[in-house]
Amino acid sequence: MTSAAPDPAAPTASTTPRPRFQFSIDAQDGAARRGTIRMRRGDIRTPAFMPVGTAATVKGMKPEAVRGTGADIILGNTYHLMLRPGAERMARLGGLHGFMNWPRPILTDSGGYQVMSLSDLRKLTEEGVEFRSHLDGSKHMLTPERSMEIQRLLGSDIVMAFDECPRADQPREAIAASMELSMRWAKRSRDAFDAGGDHAKNAALFGIQQGALDEELRGRSAAALREIGFDGYAIGGLAVGEGQEAMFATLNFAPGQLPEDAPRYLMGVGKPDDLVGAVERGVDMFDCVLPTRSGRNGQAFTWNGPLNLRNARFAEDTGPLDERCSCPTCATYSRAYLHHLVKSGEMLGAMLVTEHNLSFYQQLMQAMRDAIGAGRFAGFAAEFRRDYLTKR
Amino acid sequence: MTSAAPDPAAPTASTTPRPRFQFSIDAQDGAARRGTIRMRRGDIRTPAFMPVGTAATVKGMKPEAVRGTGADIILGNTYHLMLRPGAERMARLGGLHGFMNWPRPILTDSGGYQVMSLSDLRKLTEEGVEFRSHLDGSKHMLTPERSMEIQRLLGSDIVMAFDECPRADQPREAIAASMELSMRWAKRSRDAFDAGGDHAKNAALFGIQQGALDEELRGRSAAALREIGFDGYAIGGLAVGEGQEAMFATLNFAPGQLPEDAPRYLMGVGKPDDLVGAVERGVDMFDCVLPTRSGRNGQAFTWNGPLNLRNARFAEDTGPLDERCSCPTCATYSRAYLHHLVKSGEMLGAMLVTEHNLSFYQQLMQAMRDAIGAGRFAGFAAEFRRDYLTKR
Ligand SMILES: [Zn+2]
Ligand SMILES: [Zn+2]
Repeated sequence: MTSAAPDPAAPTASTTPRPRFQFSIDAQDGAARRGTIRMRRGDIRTPAFMPVGTAATVKGMKPEAVRGTGADIILGNTYHLMLRPGAERMARLGGLHGFMNWPRPILTDSGGYQVMSLSDLRKLTEEGVEFRSHLDGSKHMLTPERSMEIQRLLGSDIVMAFDECPRADQPREAIAASMELSMRWAKRSRDAFDAGGDHAKNAALFGIQQGALDEELRGRSAAALREIGFDGYAIGGLAVGEGQEAMFATLNFAPGQLPEDAPRYLMGVGKPDDLVGAVERGVDMFDCVLPTRSGRNGQAFTWNGPLNLRNARFAEDTGPLDERCSCPTCATYSRAYLHHLVKSGEMLGAMLVTEHNLSFYQQLMQAMRDAIGAGRFAGFAAEFRRDYLTKR
Repeated sequence: MTSAAPDPAAPTASTTPRPRFQFSIDAQDGAARRGTIRMRRGDIRTPAFMPVGTAATVKGMKPEAVRGTGADIILGNTYHLMLRPGAERMARLGGLHGFMNWPRPILTDSGGYQVMSLSDLRKLTEEGVEFRSHLDGSKHMLTPERSMEIQRLLGSDIVMAFDECPRADQPREAIAASMELSMRWAKRSRDAFDAGGDHAKNAALFGIQQGALDEELRGRSAAALREIGFDGYAIGGLAVGEGQEAMFATLNFAPGQLPEDAPRYLMGVGKPDDLVGAVERGVDMFDCVLPTRSGRNGQAFTWNGPLNLRNARFAEDTGPLDERCSCPTCATYSRAYLHHLVKSGEMLGAMLVTEHNLSFYQQLMQAMRDAIGAGRFAGFAAEFRRDYLTKR
């Protein structure tokens, strides 16, 4: 975002108030769609990748640098933030946006997924989930109503319904029962969100489709969500170990079961080739820790596939991480320097590779948006896979 | 450095070549001096604080942000860089400045101090020090000649003579013998530096005074160094555990034993109140890991003394770290947010507090330079101590 051209996603001091939530599709190519979500705090260009800012920070990045990569929206984690600094404290401090200096849209997850993956001693009932904090063992309860309240206290722009995400390897009856519980919780989430006063007038609520890899269950879940009605629809319960082939097989039907005129958000995905395959199948939004986590581990994503910077072959490589990348890291530093920093465990290595990775992800999203607009998405995807997946 | 005013220390494309090394004093107030060192790669305003960039990075800071704090020069560590990435490799990669994207002056230490504090199995002889790397146990030898060669290969602007820094609690004869060895090594350093061809025509060499807390030994050391002749003179062997009172007692005589027309550099110092007391006694240059290391540990320096950001009293403190500080951290973030980041072990906490600390140190240096120029250093120092040292 260093060009002098006007920033298309900048919030303006226009006299017309910005909409609460408005999704428009301006180009379609096969199942792939290009569009814009307009919200009070700014526009979100889709297909969109949301960097993950778990604990009120995108790890290793100042917020202006996150914006500099081209991100229109980031994700915050309800589970982490409710435990530290705490939702009521965050509200007293004026909300997440000011606290972390990110004035643009923030999507918050519901906490359901991370309660199951991170906390201790969970007890699941119709009411919700009781658990102990992984930080200090303190006891907490998350319900649809409390999740909506926490996300409101944080000041979230896109609130996610509270759901249960079961393991995909369970028997079909267990998957079905869990999905049905999630649909009852989706209705309670809708009601609690709508009772949120001013927040409900300025934020959006997304429902989450469940049903694992099963087309019929996913169809029933989609019907239940449409019946309730949401601003956007997430595809949950994927990227939990099923593998890319099974995920793509599910994405061959799941997006089509959801409303066409609302954004579709594939949660927790993924690798660059996952994103291309999912956009090809009609997905509009993504979030994933991969570019940031990999950045801290010395793995860089490039148009020619991932690079492990610990590899000794980079020790005297004076080239940039990626010849085609326009990020500050690639403009300034050699692979040799990044190799040195990563090998030395230096914070700056994590910072520079994270910035490159987030920038690469945004450049990939922009390339997909351009390809959809030009009606050449299939060609783009084929070229991308040729370059990205070829082992060299 | 965000003002639109011309940067007084910017290298210019002037037709007159910049000097190799030129020190001028433009104001004096008591023993305190204000001046400028002019070198090929830029000017250094004195009294100067040099951030430490041990392993070709000031930890947690991009080089443009280091410059943004007001730093004119940084320090690199010969011991770390000779082990990783290695001096010959660094030379093949074009030297330290390009490698780490810091085009301004770099001072490198000689490696002597860190060989004694960090490496294993040292063997000290007249020739030099044999040691094993703390990284991989590999065997290395540092001599005055090899130290000069390494600093030349790195492309150092200010090269430090190779010396031995003994513990201050040894018998006087041991201190004296060590100082005399260091003086023989200083002569060998001078000869080896001068044989360095083009590098010697573009860089400067500093000698290092030893003699612990003993005025007579320090006097003999100073005489030996003056006899050899250097561009600048460091005061070594302090800040090794003797305490501020003993250090100031030594600084009551040591700077005056060194040439008046050359910069005096107090190595490894120190806390903000150490810097004020040392400038008051005639010191011109400093380096210390304290602002960066403290930044990573959640300790912030302010005009009202240090703050430990882990303290629960900051959890809902919406004020900046320091009301008087002009750094980006203080302009943007609350103590509550920094407390949250530090408690959460977030990299951004280390980044933001490090940036504040380095900026605070540079603002302190600027305030001292201003006070010397205005002839009110004693008043400045009294006010500084009143605010900084008062427990609240
Ligand atoms: Zn890049
Ligand atoms: Zn500050």
